[in-house]
Amino acid sequence: MNMSNQTLQFKNDIFVQSTGTVVGPKEAEGPLKTTFDKFYDELYCGEDTWELAERKLMSEAIDICLEKANKKSEEMDFFLGGDLLNQNITASYVAREKEIPYFGLFNACSTSMEAVILAAVLIDGAFANHVMTAVSSHFSTAERQFRFPTEFGGQKPSTAMWTVTGSGAAYVSKKKSNIRIETATVGKVIDLGVTSPFNMGAAMAPAAANTIKTHLDDLNRDPEYYDLIVTGDLSRVGSPILKSLLLENNLDISKIHQDCGIQIFSGDQSVFSGGSGCACSAVVTYSHIFNQMKRGTLKKVLVVATGALFNTLMIQQKESIPCIAHGVSFEYVES
Amino acid sequence: MNMSNQTLQFKNDIFVQSTGTVVGPKEAEGPLKTTFDKFYDELYCGEDTWELAERKLMSEAIDICLEKANKKSEEMDFFLGGDLLNQNITASYVAREKEIPYFGLFNACSTSMEAVILAAVLIDGAFANHVMTAVSSHFSTAERQFRFPTEFGGQKPSTAMWTVTGSGAAYVSKKKSNIRIETATVGKVIDLGVTSPFNMGAAMAPAAANTIKTHLDDLNRDPEYYDLIVTGDLSRVGSPILKSLLLENNLDISKIHQDCGIQIFSGDQSVFSGGSGCACSAVVTYSHIFNQMKRGTLKKVLVVATGALFNTLMIQQKESIPCIAHGVSFEYVES
Repeated sequence: MNMSNQTLQFKNDIFVQSTGTVVGPKEAEGPLKTTFDKFYDELYCGEDTWELAERKLMSEAIDICLEKANKKSEEMDFFLGGDLLNQNITASYVAREKEIPYFGLFNACSTSMEAVILAAVLIDGAFANHVMTAVSSHFSTAERQFRFPTEFGGQKPSTAMWTVTGSGAAYVSKKKSNIRIETATVGKVIDLGVTSPFNMGAAMAPAAANTIKTHLDDLNRDPEYYDLIVTGDLSRVGSPILKSLLLENNLDISKIHQDCGIQIFSGDQSVFSGGSGCACSAVVTYSHIFNQMKRGTLKKVLVVATGALFNTLMIQQKESIPCIAHGVSFEYVES
Repeated sequence: MNMSNQTLQFKNDIFVQSTGTVVGPKEAEGPLKTTFDKFYDELYCGEDTWELAERKLMSEAIDICLEKANKKSEEMDFFLGGDLLNQNITASYVAREKEIPYFGLFNACSTSMEAVILAAVLIDGAFANHVMTAVSSHFSTAERQFRFPTEFGGQKPSTAMWTVTGSGAAYVSKKKSNIRIETATVGKVIDLGVTSPFNMGAAMAPAAANTIKTHLDDLNRDPEYYDLIVTGDLSRVGSPILKSLLLENNLDISKIHQDCGIQIFSGDQSVFSGGSGCACSAVVTYSHIFNQMKRGTLKKVLVVATGALFNTLMIQQKESIPCIAHGVSFEYVES
């Protein structure tokens, strides 16, 4: 087998011990409401600014995650975190509060799985026993940073996505749990020339296709090996593109594919083509999907978190949008 | 010995194979001019925008680094990169060009050593054989993003720093070279309440002190164990603060401490208190310092890259500046 170096296999059994998910009002009105650990009914979450609200979401997601595992933050060896805000300020200020040695990461919305991959790498290499990972996004902090002031009320096309307000944390260690981190595939940056930040689903779909194909080829697996292949935030626009790109390679994922950005909101919520943001893949995976895995109704799941690696200045300079997708396969293990 | 979990020791011998350093005009007028692989005599580096110039610096630093090791980019298993620009656009667009599976990192100016640490972790755990790391910064891209439009000509206090224009790349593998990555200490976020982005040396000094003390304590070493303890960008303001903080802990580094931000410019260049930026620690370490190690005139060096994890919005919201420092000890190995 001519395996790429992108797919990582671990010598040790490494597990997700616990997760924490905290979301905002729109997510709490969606179909997954009851799966989240906590929600706020307004975007400020009781804070003075949206940035402080986002920080609170991540801080609380970590606290809930720790509490479920009966651990304290000082027992964590490392914190791997990231978000969408300029200079990763959510994760960095949370790292200040939690006082855990910190690796800051940025791969846009794919940072959720980037963090899980590096957590497993650190543990497998015996550099750590307990690693906390967390990512966040917030509708209002993302709007004012990437798009227009919210007060301006700019119109958007239907291909646009709605940034998920929330944070998902996952604590990773070697202690046995129901959810094993089985393998991971690190993405390459793929850019087929999409230039519109209002069509990120189309921009990111080729990166997801590339990572899924690499993953399946490397491990000599068919799509049907998995009960579910779930992408982070391709939405209603990017998901069909992904399926069609893979079909061109004789890979049919149509029966087992879902997208966190579609799952998190119901069809009658005004979210354009679906949810996006660092938190999107994290809060759906760490609640809805892991809940099904803990019950054993899903046994083999490939989570492919997708990220658009642009900023506003690059769009103004007429650049296209480079994208990346990191895949992690999680496996149900009986208690 | 009650060792923290912050200090990593590697089971394998891991080496820096080659480095590439490309800098801008002011750096080329400084005392280290002849140590850099390449320089440009104007800030646009022949490109249309400063952002494209910064991207060119990183791309070329990697190319030079690869060429010295007689390697091609497709032989690299992973690329670990970061920069100071919003959403890491320099590293991400370079990752697109180089087509190497990519982990995007952000720990501000300490990203240089964050990347080296994670490269060594990936190799030590047998997840990779060849890892490229690179970071960059650019005076003009940083000015317009973090401060004021350059054309505005705003005044600055003498405690301000001058962002280094340049990029440093380092290729890491298990093949023996003169420079071994011996140990590493991952930093915690430290914030003693400095709120001025024009005094980052003072803000970062406590983080450097914390990492150096942790490193020496963990390994039961005296400062004199090292021929050189070099900080990334504490400048003329932060360096005396670092030394005095360590002296309070009975650690005297005064005879062996240097700061890349002081070394890169001469006293008669107008750079306020000294150089800063992701590239500062990288280009000085990968040229001037490693040159001395290759000659054996420096044998044990601790590089402590320092980073200020803020953004402009946090300053506007009256937040103080959280800082971090990652330390890597490099050891001379005879050929």
